[in-house]
Amino acid sequence: MAGTDKSQTPQLADGPVVVLVRPQMGENIGASARAMMNFGLSDLRLVAPRDGWPNPSARAMASRADSVLDNAQLFDRTEDAIADLNLVFATTARRRDMVKPILTPRRAVADLRAAAGQRQRIGLLFGGERAGLDNEDVVLCDAAVSVPANPGFSSINLAQAVLLLGYEWFTAGSDVPDIDPADGGNRAANKQELVGLFEHLEAELDGGDYFANVEAKRPAMVRNIRNIFQRGQLLEQDVRTLRGVIKALAGRRGERSRSGS
Amino acid sequence: MAGTDKSQTPQLADGPVVVLVRPQMGENIGASARAMMNFGLSDLRLVAPRDGWPNPSARAMASRADSVLDNAQLFDRTEDAIADLNLVFATTARRRDMVKPILTPRRAVADLRAAAGQRQRIGLLFGGERAGLDNEDVVLCDAAVSVPANPGFSSINLAQAVLLLGYEWFTAGSDVPDIDPADGGNRAANKQELVGLFEHLEAELDGGDYFANVEAKRPAMVRNIRNIFQRGQLLEQDVRTLRGVIKALAGRRGERSRSGS
Repeated sequence: MAGTDKSQTPQLADGPVVVLVRPQMGENIGASARAMMNFGLSDLRLVAPRDGWPNPSARAMASRADSVLDNAQLFDRTEDAIADLNLVFATTARRRDMVKPILTPRRAVADLRAAAGQRQRIGLLFGGERAGLDNEDVVLCDAAVSVPANPGFSSINLAQAVLLLGYEWFTAGSDVPDIDPADGGNRAANKQELVGLFEHLEAELDGGDYFANVEAKRPAMVRNIRNIFQRGQLLEQDVRTLRGVIKALAGRRGERSRSGS
Repeated sequence: MAGTDKSQTPQLADGPVVVLVRPQMGENIGASARAMMNFGLSDLRLVAPRDGWPNPSARAMASRADSVLDNAQLFDRTEDAIADLNLVFATTARRRDMVKPILTPRRAVADLRAAAGQRQRIGLLFGGERAGLDNEDVVLCDAAVSVPANPGFSSINLAQAVLLLGYEWFTAGSDVPDIDPADGGNRAANKQELVGLFEHLEAELDGGDYFANVEAKRPAMVRNIRNIFQRGQLLEQDVRTLRGVIKALAGRRGERSRSGS
């Protein structure tokens, strides 16, 4: 899905810190940075990345999310990476033998937003590609977050997990309407315009042979046709378009009549 | 996030057909197949993939989602790929000068699920990496779906778009609880157990010098300490653990007293 408006400055909200713990592939760090940027997250922290830091592979995958990588902080230990945070959730797909609530991503971002609203500093912990987070990392967190997925195929890539949590974070704070009519400023047709369309169409059908020999059925047929257009939620512009279509079709019929068909 | 339970057969629900229109990179087709499998979607259709079909790069990225690729259908035209479907949404990040409602992913899957419940066949159209869907593809669809994202950085990868829509589809039908206490069968402590813990702790503090010289403040100090543990939502097992901790600490104090410290 292309469509970035390059004239707009990326909005970086005061969202959760993203902590990648022992990530392996630079590509996934870069893709995570890009996912963060997609959803307005900017504070990336890395704990002991396998291939060191900075990592050219990360930059290659980050696209225009370079600023996230430029500002990424490096730590040796998870404890230090989250030291200034108040509420931290650990993303994990595994059920662990640990007493720790497991939240859906949607519930997790609701809790994070509530905490941020009380000026708490918030974060999300993601484990490395091979085995996820250690129990020692999870125990530092307030709860676990698990993405609901196909039980037989639930393995989700590191950057995809960042993407899904970022998406939930952004969506929870988004004022994008559920449904945008995208009517280009055109208003819905009013009943007068609709009735005008119906009567125009029916007059042309009367002028032709549409109702010939079925006059008794005419009222029901008219109702059916009216319902077809009634269902279509026509805009005022649509009514004008359709009246033009009717006029053109009726005109061709007139021509054919005149040419003796 | 590792954690696929390989003993479980992937669940493939009767979800939307995923149609990739003129996809370019095989890697993205493979990653899309994998995202589909993550969220229980199985019906993949390809319209004019740039590098032909089958494509080894797709297979390399698909991990264990081979079955989705094996069953993928190939078409020359979008019209043919969606011929048997009743309700199809076009994913797009771009606002188009076209009168077509734009839905959030959440609203889109709600509408798709409602249609599927009325035995309609449903689908989602995704455009190629470079430019997304053509207007000619979008016009074949009932509505557009757009992922809310950072307005300055809204470009989302093809496979990521499939992932996000798949995630919303799966989540809408998931009965995973918002919050799972993950208490390993341990029940919450009852008030008798909590009061027992409080009184044990307070008795040991009385036996030491914690309240010495501040006897007037004792009631308030006791309330503070009780509230600390009250907030912790202790399990019955936690209470036993903490009583063991108190006993151990008080025991060491006793030893030190005896050794004359």
